[in-house]
Amino acid sequence: MKNDLFLRALKGETVERPPVWMMRQAGRFLPDFRALKEKYDFFTRCQTPELATEITIMPVNQVGVDAAILFSDILVIPQAMGIPFEMKPGIGPWSESPITSSNDVQKVIVPDVNESLGYVMEAIKMTKNELDDRVPLIGFAGSPWTILCYSVQGQGSKTFDQAKRFCFEQPQAAHSLLQKITDTTIAYLKEKANSGANAIQVFDSWGGMLSPEDYQEFSWQYIAQIINALHDIIPVIVFGKGCWFALDKMAKSKASALGVDWTITPEMARAFTGGNITLQGNFDPSRLFSPIPEIERLATEMVDRFGKDKFIANLGHGILPNVPVENAQAFVNAIKNYKSN
Amino acid sequence: MKNDLFLRALKGETVERPPVWMMRQAGRFLPDFRALKEKYDFFTRCQTPELATEITIMPVNQVGVDAAILFSDILVIPQAMGIPFEMKPGIGPWSESPITSSNDVQKVIVPDVNESLGYVMEAIKMTKNELDDRVPLIGFAGSPWTILCYSVQGQGSKTFDQAKRFCFEQPQAAHSLLQKITDTTIAYLKEKANSGANAIQVFDSWGGMLSPEDYQEFSWQYIAQIINALHDIIPVIVFGKGCWFALDKMAKSKASALGVDWTITPEMARAFTGGNITLQGNFDPSRLFSPIPEIERLATEMVDRFGKDKFIANLGHGILPNVPVENAQAFVNAIKNYKSN
Repeated sequence: MKNDLFLRALKGETVERPPVWMMRQAGRFLPDFRALKEKYDFFTRCQTPELATEITIMPVNQVGVDAAILFSDILVIPQAMGIPFEMKPGIGPWSESPITSSNDVQKVIVPDVNESLGYVMEAIKMTKNELDDRVPLIGFAGSPWTILCYSVQGQGSKTFDQAKRFCFEQPQAAHSLLQKITDTTIAYLKEKANSGANAIQVFDSWGGMLSPEDYQEFSWQYIAQIINALHDIIPVIVFGKGCWFALDKMAKSKASALGVDWTITPEMARAFTGGNITLQGNFDPSRLFSPIPEIERLATEMVDRFGKDKFIANLGHGILPNVPVENAQAFVNAIKNYKSN
Repeated sequence: MKNDLFLRALKGETVERPPVWMMRQAGRFLPDFRALKEKYDFFTRCQTPELATEITIMPVNQVGVDAAILFSDILVIPQAMGIPFEMKPGIGPWSESPITSSNDVQKVIVPDVNESLGYVMEAIKMTKNELDDRVPLIGFAGSPWTILCYSVQGQGSKTFDQAKRFCFEQPQAAHSLLQKITDTTIAYLKEKANSGANAIQVFDSWGGMLSPEDYQEFSWQYIAQIINALHDIIPVIVFGKGCWFALDKMAKSKASALGVDWTITPEMARAFTGGNITLQGNFDPSRLFSPIPEIERLATEMVDRFGKDKFIANLGHGILPNVPVENAQAFVNAIKNYKSN
């Protein structure tokens, strides 16, 4: 690997500067992506390996990030499990038949991932070939809890109250669904590793909707299964948005790194995780709208506060679609130009 | 006051059991309210003192809560300041002319609250009369930051990215708007106290969207102005949803109580606030969908963990509209039947 900064930071090695990449760097803010978006619909872009490869590599070529992340979507998993999803204009992900009963859960399948998600593995192989070991490639999946949220709610939500209601009214059915998603996700991520991914990130986008106790019951125990099944094969990063309250337990797992959002200070994140595990984050995506000198100052200060080692510079959530490219570039450059005091 | 448990808990006095009320108890889940909703639109209900009074008193009569909270809306403040809002079906609050520039901010007025919000004061007087000192009456306002969120974004949002962009791109204009909202809010809450409200709650619903540093700059400094202007006149409760990271600073203010959501454990909330200030919360509103014995167990455990003193039992956010009345009643009863171990 020509640039292995990202993999070295995941191992906790001493580095000259932190690696940098941005969540949702592929398929959101670059003008070349937006041009592609006019021509092909969302799932066509995900399911056509040539398009997924092209989109994945764009931010490596155009912004110079230290890692690529495969262009795909967390909802390919419920789709493969027999829960249909489409992208509705103005709504986002939408399912015409969300899960509402234990009968529905029984009908959900644990698919052969090579059969139903072979297009993802194709895209990984093609991307690895195109990347030619310039930077590592990250594969990803949603956490089982986050996939349950969409599968039950049937669309995005501010509160995911229907998903939570399902868990609290029908906990057995919920756990049965979570286990099926977990089993599928483990098989899927193993196959991603076999296909050439260099690291895996689990996105627990909606873990922060749960109380600390419910988080352990409905989210963390399933993420822990995924980590335990994968960590010998490939480094695993877990990003739990809003999950500051669980960082102490997460830090005791075999995860190689933990993602944190911008509502926690670097000092609190280090304190809650015990100071030994690599952390990833946590620049507020909206702060990329600040004037460029302010972005540079805040990005540098972020590294000063996390420390340059055991740290992967990133945003605290996905980059926003309307961020000016030069602002994202200023963020990346500020990290790449970082010099310790 | 026949039942002064709530006011005694705000003073930190020793009580036989904690008081209980539920955020958004007025105007959401009761069938009688839903019948009224069919007949009158949202702002008619807010602006007609007879209707506001009827809705405010419903949960006192029907569920037996220990405090009433005036039926109203945080958006009556931007409306009075010249920023129009309507309730759009399927969207919620919506403004046809949100704030986008410093020019827009200059046009925003600081109104005479008695003139433009006299209907609120009428509703307070009428409600006080109807309540006849059975339980105290809470008045409320949104935090200046939360009002800015709606005024700039023009509607609800998962990220309030346009509101944040405005603050980060045009901080001077943002601070000018925040100060105008603060000045209006202080005048408004003073008048509520004069009209008979027994306590005030400031809802910082979107404070948790900000980093700890940005929270101090764009939210807390304005809430602190409100507390400083009010605390000699009336007890002030501050509820910052997702603002766990600021609890240490909030606890050093002159607020009588701090609201917390369900993503923080009682132990952490007590530790972060130093153990002396009254706390209010924090039952997950979705947990009211649990079977009734589970609600009773969790509500009792909540009091065990917070402790019966310096505690006001509540939800961690507003009650959901589709919660069965008997489940809400079970929550209230569990607190009212609480016996220390």
